[in-house]
Amino acid sequence: MKTLKVIKIGGKIIDNEAQLTSFLREFSSLKGSKILVHGGGKLASDLSNKMNIPVKFIDGRRVTNAETLDIITMVYAGKINKTIVAKLQSFGCNSIGFTGADGNTIIANKRSETPINYGFAGDIVKVNISTLKILINSDITNIFSAISHDQNGQLLNTNADTIASELAIAFSKDYKVELYYCFEKKGVLQRTNDDNSVINKINNKTYIELKKSNIISEGMIPKLDNCFYALDRNVSKVCIGNPTMLFDHHSNFTTIQKL
Amino acid sequence: MKTLKVIKIGGKIIDNEAQLTSFLREFSSLKGSKILVHGGGKLASDLSNKMNIPVKFIDGRRVTNAETLDIITMVYAGKINKTIVAKLQSFGCNSIGFTGADGNTIIANKRSETPINYGFAGDIVKVNISTLKILINSDITNIFSAISHDQNGQLLNTNADTIASELAIAFSKDYKVELYYCFEKKGVLQRTNDDNSVINKINNKTYIELKKSNIISEGMIPKLDNCFYALDRNVSKVCIGNPTMLFDHHSNFTTIQKL
Repeated sequence: MKTLKVIKIGGKIIDNEAQLTSFLREFSSLKGSKILVHGGGKLASDLSNKMNIPVKFIDGRRVTNAETLDIITMVYAGKINKTIVAKLQSFGCNSIGFTGADGNTIIANKRSETPINYGFAGDIVKVNISTLKILINSDITNIFSAISHDQNGQLLNTNADTIASELAIAFSKDYKVELYYCFEKKGVLQRTNDDNSVINKINNKTYIELKKSNIISEGMIPKLDNCFYALDRNVSKVCIGNPTMLFDHHSNFTTIQKL
Repeated sequence: MKTLKVIKIGGKIIDNEAQLTSFLREFSSLKGSKILVHGGGKLASDLSNKMNIPVKFIDGRRVTNAETLDIITMVYAGKINKTIVAKLQSFGCNSIGFTGADGNTIIANKRSETPINYGFAGDIVKVNISTLKILINSDITNIFSAISHDQNGQLLNTNADTIASELAIAFSKDYKVELYYCFEKKGVLQRTNDDNSVINKINNKTYIELKKSNIISEGMIPKLDNCFYALDRNVSKVCIGNPTMLFDHHSNFTTIQKL
């Protein structure tokens, strides 16, 4: 079975142009098939502020009214996605930018408006990788912005971590899939402010303990839930850390494992 | 030889959502392989105005500084392109949105800053259709926004009519290509304000006469130059008119022909 790397990069890598360029240069040199999923960083909120459109989050999730969906589509699928594609081409990595609407790849339902109305937020119901497979077989790298569609013409703002795990799961039938969540920290930390306190391995048993002792809390919980969800559905390897983990196997990062 | 339709739609069709949706519904039902190229309409200027970024045109061509390039990338490749793709999926037309950076498809040089500095405007130097061919062979329709790249990581604003003609030419080796320029009028008009004065056929000889007598002038000249350029390079059919020409062969429109 061939290996496929699904790599998600977070907002802070995107916000810093030099860091993004350096990441993309190294990403281009990664051997084998790969898919990149990117979040939006603070550019979408910056544009909302410039246009006097209120930015609203509930429990860390963006509330996406029609104006905000336009901004997200413009920033994620336009500016960020196409900047990444153009940079990758300059490094010789042939790539195509995708949303979930492209190739009918990621199909979602608009989230129920109760108990909380998140607006045009999508919960994934189906992933359709037939087009992606054709492209991967032609050595083309797909770059995903975190937008899905409902097959009735509606684009939907969708969590980038979830897009990455759902893509990883969908490919696991045909590929040995490795899923990497890259962010600014070295991994899941024992002590929030100590970047040298990386927890190297977390399994379903230690995860429960780490949550009980509040070492893992808030935003890290949905991220780790995504990781275990993917492992339960045949993704072969799931790691969290900064992008160095992709290029230096001796670096410190967190591997999520099933017992 | 298989037939491929390359269809360019202009700004005014995009600006009117009902008209765009109705066009896309009919476009979806067109048999055979097809590529859609879209301009930007007034949405880009609207966004510039909202953000207090000056909009500047010289001889009908947009001056694209760095801020304007961001806006164009957001509006053309983000909002418009992905709205079109999502709508097409709802009509059962499997499509993927492209810029010239995607698949390394349209390579351009930044236009010389003398005599007029148009900023990040691209003049096409190469069209690379290998990825598009793979997708067309898989029954996927490609939707192009009018953006190219220079292979050094720079996106460039590029004339949509030219992208359409260059794509049409590039495919003419392997396909019988028909190129359609759709806009709000029924075709090239004998009398500017009389929509019933469509000139049904223009060839290289009558073109010279129509220019001499000022019946064809200004913005229509580069459009017709593009048409003859394409005909000279083996595009089999070139037409100008409103979208009705695609669906009703008895409608009135202009066919451009070589003598």
